Amino acid sequence: MTVKQLSMPELAEACTDLGVRGIGLWRAPVQEYGLEATAKLLRDRGLAVTTLCRGGFFTAIDPHARVQAIDDNRRAIDEAAALGTDTLVLVSGGLPPGSSDLHAARERIAEALAELAPYAHERGVRLAIEPLHPMYAADRCVVSTLTQALDLAERFPADQVGVCVDTYHVWWDDRAPAEIARAGRGGRLHAFQLADWTTPLPEGVLNGRGQLGDGAIDLRAWRELVDAAGYAGPVEVELFNDELWGRDGREVLTETADRYREHA
Amino acid sequence: MTVKQLSMPELAEACTDLGVRGIGLWRAPVQEYGLEATAKLLRDRGLAVTTLCRGGFFTAIDPHARVQAIDDNRRAIDEAAALGTDTLVLVSGGLPPGSSDLHAARERIAEALAELAPYAHERGVRLAIEPLHPMYAADRCVVSTLTQALDLAERFPADQVGVCVDTYHVWWDDRAPAEIARAGRGGRLHAFQLADWTTPLPEGVLNGRGQLGDGAIDLRAWRELVDAAGYAGPVEVELFNDELWGRDGREVLTETADRYREHA
Repeated sequence: MTVKQLSMPELAEACTDLGVRGIGLWRAPVQEYGLEATAKLLRDRGLAVTTLCRGGFFTAIDPHARVQAIDDNRRAIDEAAALGTDTLVLVSGGLPPGSSDLHAARERIAEALAELAPYAHERGVRLAIEPLHPMYAADRCVVSTLTQALDLAERFPADQVGVCVDTYHVWWDDRAPAEIARAGRGGRLHAFQLADWTTPLPEGVLNGRGQLGDGAIDLRAWRELVDAAGYAGPVEVELFNDELWGRDGREVLTETADRYREHA
Repeated sequence: MTVKQLSMPELAEACTDLGVRGIGLWRAPVQEYGLEATAKLLRDRGLAVTTLCRGGFFTAIDPHARVQAIDDNRRAIDEAAALGTDTLVLVSGGLPPGSSDLHAARERIAEALAELAPYAHERGVRLAIEPLHPMYAADRCVVSTLTQALDLAERFPADQVGVCVDTYHVWWDDRAPAEIARAGRGGRLHAFQLADWTTPLPEGVLNGRGQLGDGAIDLRAWRELVDAAGYAGPVEVELFNDELWGRDGREVLTETADRYREHA
């Protein structure tokens, strides 16, 4: 998503040229280019798919909507398996219209995980619950802290359900360092993503994630925390940023790699 | 601030007409109308000043800026005393430019409180630390949770430093109900404010606080939590909302009182 202006072949070529060996993918661009075509393209270049984003949106009350969500997440798990990644990142969903019950919404997430985790496990895919910044609690994700994400994940086996830590979402939380250690101890640190925090936030607060080094987050400190927790997986940079999307994609990718070396 | 389009006399008259017996004030409109004039106007009408907003902005590193902040907060305390309110609400300040050290910024807040709390106490004013939503951690307030606010407050006597609970800032936090009880037990629940959470958030995320009942927050549940914690003080409604500011102020005040009865 950081360079969504690049087509799948352009992205694969740019990553190869830069020495980037893995890519985190979102479902929509994969579906656009074709699932099998994407898998083959990246396989042929020796590029790993680090994670697939995203499953989730489990918080509907309406039974029909819940069945649709489960079905869609089964397809996401199938897609992850086809792409050869072992991790599907979950954005759990916000409050349904008219509801203000955060606790009940979180329980509905647990119910969905109970259905999906075994299905994913059979296909070699782990589910990674991503806590989103509390500013998304109403409309995107009622799981707002790493503590909540781990409380949910720990109801299931560690090789089935873990967490995705994104600096953009957890940087403000003074409990997050201890929770990263908890995730590491439990074998539940399934993905790690970097983005910086810049202000002012744009309208809708979706597409203002800062380029590494442009914002308030001590990215290196967070990278060292996941290192200390035993994380040995890939580090993804996931920037939703209108300004970056308006620039040349290869240039943004090169800049991002440079910033990663400098700041993380 | 909910009806900042009203002049001070208009506000006083509208509150009297509605049967609202107290008003939370911000410093700028008070200074504009005059401190003594405001105090007299409200006293003559029998209107209480519930709190004064706001002191704070304690996180600067530069020594000169720190002295200025302390001096300005002393003036805010004097103003609170002159207005006859016992509570000055504090917005603690964000990260200074170039810094990413949230912990150190919080310690500088504690240093400022140590200087100001006795000064306020001598004038009959309590300081109320207001945790702001984590989306303000970088640029307005590094105190993002009620837990952090109480951890800071509890370094000082309860009749000198407490907390201000605003539903807009804490509604997402599953620890906040227990922290409200903790604040009540400790005699540190010094102010309680209502605002609803509506999306999408506007650019800058400052002026999108929802009218009571328009958003995702179970306001009555929060009001009952502070009741159960022994809070017997006023309930303020503090809405920063461009749409409300664009309407007739008396109409907004009437609507707000109606919404309060319906939703809180």
